Amino acid sequence: MSLSKNQFKLITSLRQKKYRLKHHLFIAEGTKVVDEFLNSNFEVDSLFCVDDSSYSTIENRFLVSEAVLKKISTLKSPNNVLGIFKIPKVSNLKNEGLILVLDGVNDPGNLGTIIRLCDWFGVDQLICSEDTVDCYNTKVVQATMGSLTRVSIVYANIETYLKSTELPVFATLMDGENVYNCKLPEQGVLVMGNEAKGIREHILELSNNAISIPRFGDLKQTESLNVASATAIFLSEFKRNT
Amino acid sequence: MSLSKNQFKLITSLRQKKYRLKHHLFIAEGTKVVDEFLNSNFEVDSLFCVDDSSYSTIENRFLVSEAVLKKISTLKSPNNVLGIFKIPKVSNLKNEGLILVLDGVNDPGNLGTIIRLCDWFGVDQLICSEDTVDCYNTKVVQATMGSLTRVSIVYANIETYLKSTELPVFATLMDGENVYNCKLPEQGVLVMGNEAKGIREHILELSNNAISIPRFGDLKQTESLNVASATAIFLSEFKRNT
Repeated sequence: MSLSKNQFKLITSLRQKKYRLKHHLFIAEGTKVVDEFLNSNFEVDSLFCVDDSSYSTIENRFLVSEAVLKKISTLKSPNNVLGIFKIPKVSNLKNEGLILVLDGVNDPGNLGTIIRLCDWFGVDQLICSEDTVDCYNTKVVQATMGSLTRVSIVYANIETYLKSTELPVFATLMDGENVYNCKLPEQGVLVMGNEAKGIREHILELSNNAISIPRFGDLKQTESLNVASATAIFLSEFKRNT
Repeated sequence: MSLSKNQFKLITSLRQKKYRLKHHLFIAEGTKVVDEFLNSNFEVDSLFCVDDSSYSTIENRFLVSEAVLKKISTLKSPNNVLGIFKIPKVSNLKNEGLILVLDGVNDPGNLGTIIRLCDWFGVDQLICSEDTVDCYNTKVVQATMGSLTRVSIVYANIETYLKSTELPVFATLMDGENVYNCKLPEQGVLVMGNEAKGIREHILELSNNAISIPRFGDLKQTESLNVASATAIFLSEFKRNT
């Protein structure tokens, strides 16, 4: 079966954030990733597959040729299926547990890695500033390997959130307190900043604590840790003594 | 000035590992990265730049147009300069300090992140199995942001190395001892495996200890941590009490 012009147009439009927001839909690709979404609370809109034998329970499925799949896919090597799923309703902001706040993280690969870290460390909610890269970006969806189905992610005004929360707020900086010497609480908000610029000044002012990972290499060098690597270490520090 | 056919051929050939090995040369791009290599022990072979005002001391420099730079560049937005540098002579394998061994890491982005982590944590040597992605791969060079100039990297038969070393060897697994409960030594070898397959069986057998990062999220899920994220946490654990 070939696709209608409208189907083709819809699918390719979902590569752009504005159309994902407009239609409340996003793309997930490949059997492994699609299966993770099908086995989660996410609702499927439609599937486009070369072989539909494992999707017989999905009503809205369309058989396509390898060539058509290649056309609609964003992957170099498409793997049998492209799924369109509904973007879930926004959850409420949480004020307990361990919360991770991102202030303008730009890179889809970094966000994907951070979502997997939240899944691993059981972070209770990931709150992203509105200018953080969209978690339904196709690169993020493919990089999270299904963690997206298990992590509560909210895009919000983080300034308003940080002003309202009663949890202690930990900002991560180059020259804060050595995190290895801090007694970290079980409940709190960890704030990570943009890849190049770090945390914005007015967000920084809303934190109660500034923490850093000490550098052990050549101290004259100013290179910083990648934001995903730093997030891995900070989350590990929050969790290691719980 | 335009490039000779041979120059063009050489430059583009260096995108492939076999030609990097043949010529003992690799590419670094953009003013920031090129400057890091120029200010290091690496030897420059030649520079191709749109504006050479900051490279007047480099003999072998060639002025090129923006259009030519775009042609030879591997970047979407080339930034003034493409440098060709000499691959340094192989260092000797170290048997003291903290050594990181990679068993078949495939992804250039992961290797780049791991090299930056080695720089940050002052790892004394990074030893890569011969099938680990080449650290002079253009993607790795650009991702390391200059850390490549400060980390001692050797490609070697890691089985031979692990058999010969007297340092304690720590293999990282899904079901090893909880790393947070381990008393880690200041000197030792940490082994990280391939993204999909982990550490090969015959390499695993050469380790004295098996360590893991505990999972705090939903325990039924089998997703593993990204190898670069896991490396970040293990290196942090080795260094945090030193």
